[in-house]
Amino acid sequence: MAKKIITISREFGSGGRSIGRAVAERLGYKFYDQEIIMHVAEESGLSKEIVEKYDEYATHKNSFLYSIAVNAGGDAYGGLSFANQVQIAQSNVIKALAEEGNCVIVGRGADYILRDREDCLHVFIRADIKSRAERVVKMYGETDKKIEDRLKDKDTKRKVFYRSFTMRDWGLCENYDISLDSAKIGMDKCVDIIVDIAKA
Amino acid sequence: MAKKIITISREFGSGGRSIGRAVAERLGYKFYDQEIIMHVAEESGLSKEIVEKYDEYATHKNSFLYSIAVNAGGDAYGGLSFANQVQIAQSNVIKALAEEGNCVIVGRGADYILRDREDCLHVFIRADIKSRAERVVKMYGETDKKIEDRLKDKDTKRKVFYRSFTMRDWGLCENYDISLDSAKIGMDKCVDIIVDIAKA
Repeated sequence: MAKKIITISREFGSGGRSIGRAVAERLGYKFYDQEIIMHVAEESGLSKEIVEKYDEYATHKNSFLYSIAVNAGGDAYGGLSFANQVQIAQSNVIKALAEEGNCVIVGRGADYILRDREDCLHVFIRADIKSRAERVVKMYGETDKKIEDRLKDKDTKRKVFYRSFTMRDWGLCENYDISLDSAKIGMDKCVDIIVDIAKA
Repeated sequence: MAKKIITISREFGSGGRSIGRAVAERLGYKFYDQEIIMHVAEESGLSKEIVEKYDEYATHKNSFLYSIAVNAGGDAYGGLSFANQVQIAQSNVIKALAEEGNCVIVGRGADYILRDREDCLHVFIRADIKSRAERVVKMYGETDKKIEDRLKDKDTKRKVFYRSFTMRDWGLCENYDISLDSAKIGMDKCVDIIVDIAKA
């Protein structure tokens, strides 16, 4: 069965977003990354700024699932923190986008949200920290903060977000149909492999 | 750079061994799986039975690295448990096989032992437990023990072996260049992808 939805989880600086965009172009699929923020703002009624603040970097103690559990049966957004409101809206938006089909969705726990759909291909893109650091400096330039420290900080935040959102650990092979090291394999080859599997 | 050595780590019943054998045939590489046991017996001087007992299923408390540390400078095998003797011999054998090049090595922490070689491709093969159970029954027939319990038991033992041998956790994307779900992607396609990357 051809895969109508491709989720791309990625380490910061691994090129996962660029790979996702190239895959979408090759397959003629829609591509969702930052676009999701606007959808989430509309869905939740929160401002774009609030959504951006909590997008993929939630650091609150209570989990998404816990919040869902304690709020079950009531107003979906009643009494929830902004972080949880953003997560619930993200989940609703991603399910709706998947329902439309033929799309690539980057990040935001989409692999978890859509885990029970048979028509999804769940991809993880990573690379060693040195290659990621080189790529980030090339793409975004230098900053005051040491680049490898920035990457480690981003990695930690993404792990915390993923854990709080899904109750699963980040970067486990078992959560993905395919995981690729973009530095070792090459970005073009990663695109080829994903497109090939999606079409099969 | 073409990859001269391919290590295949795999969940029990995922077809990783069959995929590894097919990759070796396609590339004209040597294939090492059970064959390693004889090499390890020769290297260590232990019997084939002892090596088989501790092959990939060590459950001892002390880690391999700890044993190396406390025995540094002395006789490599002096005072070590059978499990540790097997692990040291396995490490030596796998390094020697890699030195000869053009080979596929299945299991036994080869991804860890050869982690610093640039000419390696490190592969992880996995699948959901239902698909693995179906495959194991088809390949080996029924046993008294419930098949899914057998798989969980094997999974646990492999995790413990890997942890004790490498001090790393089993099944993390970061330890592999590529991870593939053989049930979702299909075994033939897994072979194609690995061969293609190895040749690149």
